[in-house]
Amino acid sequence: MEKRTRVPEPTIARLATYFRCLADLADQEVNVVSSEEIAFRAGVKASQVRKDLSYFGEFGVQGLGYPVPGLLSRVASILQLDQQHRVALVGAGNLGTALAGFPGFARWNFHILWIFDSSPARVGQEINKVVVESMSVLPRKLPADLGILAVPGHAAEDVAKLLVASGVNALLNFTGAHLHLGPEVSVRNVDLTHELAILAYHAQRPPVGGEGE
Amino acid sequence: MEKRTRVPEPTIARLATYFRCLADLADQEVNVVSSEEIAFRAGVKASQVRKDLSYFGEFGVQGLGYPVPGLLSRVASILQLDQQHRVALVGAGNLGTALAGFPGFARWNFHILWIFDSSPARVGQEINKVVVESMSVLPRKLPADLGILAVPGHAAEDVAKLLVASGVNALLNFTGAHLHLGPEVSVRNVDLTHELAILAYHAQRPPVGGEGE
Repeated sequence: MEKRTRVPEPTIARLATYFRCLADLADQEVNVVSSEEIAFRAGVKASQVRKDLSYFGEFGVQGLGYPVPGLLSRVASILQLDQQHRVALVGAGNLGTALAGFPGFARWNFHILWIFDSSPARVGQEINKVVVESMSVLPRKLPADLGILAVPGHAAEDVAKLLVASGVNALLNFTGAHLHLGPEVSVRNVDLTHELAILAYHAQRPPVGGEGE
Repeated sequence: MEKRTRVPEPTIARLATYFRCLADLADQEVNVVSSEEIAFRAGVKASQVRKDLSYFGEFGVQGLGYPVPGLLSRVASILQLDQQHRVALVGAGNLGTALAGFPGFARWNFHILWIFDSSPARVGQEINKVVVESMSVLPRKLPADLGILAVPGHAAEDVAKLLVASGVNALLNFTGAHLHLGPEVSVRNVDLTHELAILAYHAQRPPVGGEGE
């Protein structure tokens, strides 16, 4: 029941998946859900769902299932998604600009308060009501709760180290670069180019004549 | 040397990583690279890099390293990133609109030719010069080489099955939903909410007074 119990990383990853399933159920105004239904949506076993959730106390009612709103808010609380997170975005190019408009950030209480870029041409521009600032002022402006890396791959490691030195211990890395940082830093890598490259290999052209009607 | 040799999935995933590292080196106008440097950037062992690349024939020159432009184009060719890929995007909400502007797609020859949405209010709108069409015409318009799912999670599986039935065998899934599809379909999942949920757990506030100067 301890909120800050040390939870194994794979459990956190699955909780994040359950959170997404529960948010989806809540959007559909579903009130009660079984562990089997969560398991089907999350792609894991029902026994795993029950085990993971029991880690944080008793949620479910035998034979009835879990109350969706209650479980959603409990999981959000465990993951600290019910708190406001101050985000620093580094890189105001095309990718950074697209990310600044990503609707999921604000929805889950991640607020981009700072945008930094090394290019003088971009400093002073406004993106989603945030004025782009020079990299040179970054250490003075931070810490932040989360750093988003949207710089070219070759600059990624230096920028990441600057963020860490400025007190940022959680990074969302869109650069595709593998970062070499200490164990105290949490990094999640999202590399769309990598995903595209894998899909391109599999995306063989369907045979001509395969079109509907 | 066979272009369509069946390559194990983990090798393809690593090749996609090498591809990203090589594209980054090419952007920096680096001409020659060692397997050690690729390995460092990719976060794997140098012996692994050499083994993966030897799968497709001899690239490197003993003691000199690999020619970056030649290796980049060879890896791009293996992954079929040198071919044009016709993409269908489903979901023209905030996420879909943000994705339509993602600069990586066109750079790697993925061209969004169709955008579909179930909402009559969105049909007829233009996003990046593509007119949003109704879901009802999707089976007539496709197949495509790649489908991008940017619909709400609860609609994901039905839309995915419609795409597969329309001849789309490679899906980039941004919905967060776990899809239950046959083994003939390649799916890559990108769930930013999931990444944020994991980082939120780790993003503890840095102590006050941790600010630079």
